[in-house]
Amino acid sequence: MSRDAPIQPAPVFDETFNLRLVDLFRWRRDVRRFTPDPVPDRLIEDLVAIAALAPSVGNSQPWRFVSVETPDRRQAVIANFNACNAAALNDYEGERAALYARLKLSGLREAPVHLAVFCDRATQAGSGLGRKTMPEVLDYSVVAAIHAFWLAARARGLGVGWVSIIDPLELAASLETPPDWKLIGYLCVGFPQEEHQDPELERQHWQAHLDENDRLLRR
Amino acid sequence: MSRDAPIQPAPVFDETFNLRLVDLFRWRRDVRRFTPDPVPDRLIEDLVAIAALAPSVGNSQPWRFVSVETPDRRQAVIANFNACNAAALNDYEGERAALYARLKLSGLREAPVHLAVFCDRATQAGSGLGRKTMPEVLDYSVVAAIHAFWLAARARGLGVGWVSIIDPLELAASLETPPDWKLIGYLCVGFPQEEHQDPELERQHWQAHLDENDRLLRR
Repeated sequence: MSRDAPIQPAPVFDETFNLRLVDLFRWRRDVRRFTPDPVPDRLIEDLVAIAALAPSVGNSQPWRFVSVETPDRRQAVIANFNACNAAALNDYEGERAALYARLKLSGLREAPVHLAVFCDRATQAGSGLGRKTMPEVLDYSVVAAIHAFWLAARARGLGVGWVSIIDPLELAASLETPPDWKLIGYLCVGFPQEEHQDPELERQHWQAHLDENDRLLRR
Repeated sequence: MSRDAPIQPAPVFDETFNLRLVDLFRWRRDVRRFTPDPVPDRLIEDLVAIAALAPSVGNSQPWRFVSVETPDRRQAVIANFNACNAAALNDYEGERAALYARLKLSGLREAPVHLAVFCDRATQAGSGLGRKTMPEVLDYSVVAAIHAFWLAARARGLGVGWVSIIDPLELAASLETPPDWKLIGYLCVGFPQEEHQDPELERQHWQAHLDENDRLLRR
């Protein structure tokens, strides 16, 4: 079952690539405004295969990428988001509530592609290696795969938005996924209407950048 | 507090970059064998700043990168790993136990740089946005930052190994970090002795690649 990749010399990542890679991190955005242009199926399939190059604890590869396609399932996801978002709005008051209400927090209606990404917590792959004291690393492997998907998508001109304002158990019920699959992230994917270097939540004055968290601490 | 980056035109990520990016995902490895060469302080600082470009829920930027430097603290981390690894070995029997015992599961003694990466769960940044129904996304933001660090490090020729065979509460006690900081990952960083395209756990026949997990499912 191992990949039959021929043995290659290790690539050199030169200065030009390194600068471009930082550009990619800098311009990867959480996208919520999509054009109606369809996304080729093959592109999403390629990106999932790239995401599967992510690190996973014990080489467990626990990611499960599910494309949500039927209109009734998409409608259930939108209803799920709307209910959770209304409940979240209730937690804020005054100006903060007004600002929250103005934020666009998902592109579920517009995005041509919906992906629900799960962690298969029942997987036997990896034989439990590295999961005894910090079992949550299995979930973290899926986060790394989502991040890899996101970066590779952005490099191909595709936008990704991660929706966490969602009831994960209700979502799993809507999608009829196996009981041991834990939802890690729900992604909207499509071509972005606009491109930005700064996060929308900075631009909208919800949360500024915190320089102090860019720094290494020492012990 | 916002970054004073000048407004730039969005970069174009061409085919050459995209191919190299896939090479980077393919050649990012969990490294456990390091050369004794020191790693410039400035390089680690730069990589932490790049990691801080990762996505975070509500723009909460909850990552806290701690360089573990004093000999007594490093010794405590090694003792922590050794105890947890011995306990983990007890879970396996027969050939599996023999193989587990032969695996090199950390480079804690050799790595010139140790980084403990935490999530500050008490952060007020982001004002709770996106954390009501899936509060674990705060931790996931830190995972994305670690993955960004890892990729950027590899592109500069540095190896990173993620150690999860560790007692996180004992580690936090050793480092005297604030009580609300949850350990997400412990990283060994240094220049690698060797470079590989395939994971060590595949090479050592612990866990093969699973082609079926590279594929998109549909609902």
